[in-house]
Amino acid sequence: MAHGFFITVEGGEGAGKSSMLEFIRVRLNQAGHDVIVTREPGGTALGEHIREILLDVQGSTNAASAGTRRSSHARELHMSAETEALLMFAARAEHLERIIRPALEAGKTVLCDRFTDATYAYQGGGRGLPQERIAQLEAWVQGALRPNLTLLLDVPVDVGLKRANQRGEPDRFEREQKEFFERVRATYLERARREPQRLRVIDASRSPAEVERQIAAILTEVIGIR
Amino acid sequence: MAHGFFITVEGGEGAGKSSMLEFIRVRLNQAGHDVIVTREPGGTALGEHIREILLDVQGSTNAASAGTRRSSHARELHMSAETEALLMFAARAEHLERIIRPALEAGKTVLCDRFTDATYAYQGGGRGLPQERIAQLEAWVQGALRPNLTLLLDVPVDVGLKRANQRGEPDRFEREQKEFFERVRATYLERARREPQRLRVIDASRSPAEVERQIAAILTEVIGIR
Repeated sequence: MAHGFFITVEGGEGAGKSSMLEFIRVRLNQAGHDVIVTREPGGTALGEHIREILLDVQGSTNAASAGTRRSSHARELHMSAETEALLMFAARAEHLERIIRPALEAGKTVLCDRFTDATYAYQGGGRGLPQERIAQLEAWVQGALRPNLTLLLDVPVDVGLKRANQRGEPDRFEREQKEFFERVRATYLERARREPQRLRVIDASRSPAEVERQIAAILTEVIGIR
Repeated sequence: MAHGFFITVEGGEGAGKSSMLEFIRVRLNQAGHDVIVTREPGGTALGEHIREILLDVQGSTNAASAGTRRSSHARELHMSAETEALLMFAARAEHLERIIRPALEAGKTVLCDRFTDATYAYQGGGRGLPQERIAQLEAWVQGALRPNLTLLLDVPVDVGLKRANQRGEPDRFEREQKEFFERVRATYLERARREPQRLRVIDASRSPAEVERQIAAILTEVIGIR
């Protein structure tokens, strides 16, 4: 049976992930790929429930599956990094079974907004859950399944937060955020160093046109599309 | 530091678990134990959320954390046994961190209505998730923590369902239920055979007074209370 290509896009605050996901989708479509765009925690009913839990617990209107700007405060709001990781992987198990695996088995190209690298970065790097413990859940839930290609939209934390917040000097809460996001970014970059073939770093501090050029070059090299 | 005693009570439909939990609590109190009674998924905000998810997905007004009479139908309602197990353990992680471990560390006796044996019985025996996979999550979430004593209130499935349903002959749906609960019961009993010191089988088909007598004898033997 034909097996599709699994592409994930990762990146922190203000990295321009949404517009680049759309750029990649169009590019793949033009090359004749049948593309499914999805995101964690995924378009399943369960994923939406789990998203609500994370929003409730984190007390944020801006927290995405992987944890966003208030994730560093989830501990105070009574969810351990362990629990957060288990919930992420519960949503991921359902997402894999109901959306990702069936699409790949049908030969489609799956383009996913964040995946397990985000768990390593946010719950691991950000919140301090050991990478080895995340790897155990990854193996439990995914078996051997890994993305074929991951595009990491990397920006310095200052630049990303400034883009995301559109504000001036950081207050105390924002400085705490900054340390959290520095750890997240460092974890992403370390993973890219360990898996350079799969995990490609894009300099997302450049202009959108230049970011698109970098992405297009990688898609040409890895998937052969022009 | 003093470390409390961790007692769990397990049993299927119609085993009389609620009244026996109360009997045990009173007995322990009389013997001078400082008792906390709790249940899975636990009195945490997160546990309540997860309970709602399981209720929604299972489409039942009667599903408890460990899965009850409609759990065998969760697959049709789009939650895999893997996902169900991950959610159970997410709730359990929070329950352990926020309620069970702090109470044990304060020297209290924790009396818990269902625990991980129920995951082995319902998601494992009932829904077919391999025991080894459950053991991996158990180790991930609990480390070395296990109940000191587990009381299994065992009744034949027919007797339990009749007590719970207060009805006559089973229809097709109830016969499916019956096969599911036979697997649940067999798994509980197999676990009791493997861990006879921890997991004690109570014949809960007897009269309440006789069930109480059996429980009292075990509490005397294991904890030394009279």
